[in-house]
Amino acid sequence: MKPNGITNIKSLAKELNLAISTVSKALRDSHEVKEETKKRVWALAKKRNYQPNMFAAGLRHQKSNTIAVIFPELANSFFSLAIKGIEEVAREKNYHVLIYPTHECNEQEIAFANRLSDGRVDGLMISLSRGTTNYNHLIALHHNIPIVLFDRIIDEIDILKVTTNDYESAYMASQHLIKNGCHKILYLEALKFTSAGKMRLKGHLDALKKYGIAYQETLILDCDHPDQQNFLNIKSILSSEKPHGILSSIENLAILCYNACRELALAIPKDVKIVSFSNLETAHLWDPSLTTITQPAFEIGRESARILFRLLDKNRTCFDVENVVLESVLIQRGSSRLQEE
Amino acid sequence: MKPNGITNIKSLAKELNLAISTVSKALRDSHEVKEETKKRVWALAKKRNYQPNMFAAGLRHQKSNTIAVIFPELANSFFSLAIKGIEEVAREKNYHVLIYPTHECNEQEIAFANRLSDGRVDGLMISLSRGTTNYNHLIALHHNIPIVLFDRIIDEIDILKVTTNDYESAYMASQHLIKNGCHKILYLEALKFTSAGKMRLKGHLDALKKYGIAYQETLILDCDHPDQQNFLNIKSILSSEKPHGILSSIENLAILCYNACRELALAIPKDVKIVSFSNLETAHLWDPSLTTITQPAFEIGRESARILFRLLDKNRTCFDVENVVLESVLIQRGSSRLQEE
Repeated sequence: MKPNGITNIKSLAKELNLAISTVSKALRDSHEVKEETKKRVWALAKKRNYQPNMFAAGLRHQKSNTIAVIFPELANSFFSLAIKGIEEVAREKNYHVLIYPTHECNEQEIAFANRLSDGRVDGLMISLSRGTTNYNHLIALHHNIPIVLFDRIIDEIDILKVTTNDYESAYMASQHLIKNGCHKILYLEALKFTSAGKMRLKGHLDALKKYGIAYQETLILDCDHPDQQNFLNIKSILSSEKPHGILSSIENLAILCYNACRELALAIPKDVKIVSFSNLETAHLWDPSLTTITQPAFEIGRESARILFRLLDKNRTCFDVENVVLESVLIQRGSSRLQEE
Repeated sequence: MKPNGITNIKSLAKELNLAISTVSKALRDSHEVKEETKKRVWALAKKRNYQPNMFAAGLRHQKSNTIAVIFPELANSFFSLAIKGIEEVAREKNYHVLIYPTHECNEQEIAFANRLSDGRVDGLMISLSRGTTNYNHLIALHHNIPIVLFDRIIDEIDILKVTTNDYESAYMASQHLIKNGCHKILYLEALKFTSAGKMRLKGHLDALKKYGIAYQETLILDCDHPDQQNFLNIKSILSSEKPHGILSSIENLAILCYNACRELALAIPKDVKIVSFSNLETAHLWDPSLTTITQPAFEIGRESARILFRLLDKNRTCFDVENVVLESVLIQRGSSRLQEE
């Protein structure tokens, strides 16, 4: 019987009363081993659930069957869904998924990327942390393995990208607020170094222009700060500027807005209307329900992984793989509803 | 200059005009190589950010510096937070984290566990999927690597466990509902094969007994089904039984309850009061705000990882590591508030 739970070539050889080298050759289907012996080895290997050593197999094939995801935040509905999409594709391909949340820290992002050039992963998907302004870590790694950028991308580097229509989404959201009577809109700016952040702001500003609303610098609030500071800044600007509407460019700022309105006894949507980029499954249960620009988070993850596997399959020689832009949708709910007189 | 981005022993040897074997020995600090040569090799290796091949290093040390987490669901606030806790500890230890979401599928859980015996990971943390009733996959893997069970555990196997005080939490929650006037409480049962599921139900039933409320089988609703079916069942039982209160034993059932109450035009908390196990960050923004039993999700993840690393550090010979039980808290909000007459 099996003496303990560890099955390796040695234990198989012992149980079959064969030389270790014979078992090893049999497992590799070598012509040096008789068919009958091979069958005995394979049968026992299967019975004992023998798994070839990952490191030995990796060295032989120069492949890890593993992909990595570097991303800003774990407890976030957008990234949870995106990783769910990535994992679905990886599972179909029998690949393993390593996760590296940066907690929005650029140094952490660089450290993670630098650790991935040791053959540990066959490819990488990355969504940049807020403060990333230097991309040398990605350029260096991209020499070794294929990379796909998703959602929080930058245009400056020549790496495939999967994004959503940030410009149009923000334009649509601002237009919705304007049409519902908001002529003074507070824009909560975040991710200002990323293309997503830039496009969202541009969409908002172009909507203002289109409807003849003058640009007012004090109504663009920089929220690339810790939550606590953002909360104080939002409260302060709600008191001083008294905007009619708020467009929040990331989900967690909407939570801060609701909290701030409660403290200031501002009624949503009567005193101030709110629209936010968000993937919260429970936005319809909020008081009032939150109008969202909902991004195709799961699909963004899935598309990124599909592109990465196309690059891996083709051994990076294909030039027919292109950037992908998926559409977000504006879901109108209570927080931006037009109030009857 | 560096011809391209790939740095390996061969490229270092070429740039230094040394034999490959010399560079390899120098990197291993071999006495066969002169100190001066070693210093030149080390300096260039550092400059070129040379990473030793992971597979070769793994074979040498029989260590992967990687841990795995098998868990039921990615887009879930409890597990997002728990993995955040795990990742924090792993990062401190310079370990990599592989994730394997089972989507509550027992076969998937077994397949993942079976793939982890190839040396890929040094240890595993696992939270069982809903339908897990056979544990042979864990017992087999546990012969090879240390394992820690968290949250969704079973008592039957001799593996270290990190849980929360499920019995007391459910008891407290039911008592709260009873004290607020609910004598007919619908219990939404889930995870009935896990210890957590069993303890929660027991806590609820003991609270009923303590307050002299007769057990009523029709008020225990089996919710180990897909969401859609659970939703229909909840709606149906709300109409037929007209309970005064609901105790939901997992988070996503609370969402279904709110949706069902809206469709049936039942006012929360006036017509029915609701308490749910939940880690939603936005429970206070719901309409009405949701009373929750909030589990220490982040801490459960962190504790599990700490225990796993203690087992790894001690090479599994320590017997002073024990099961851990962390405390949940009942946060009373609008959904269970006593209505004034």
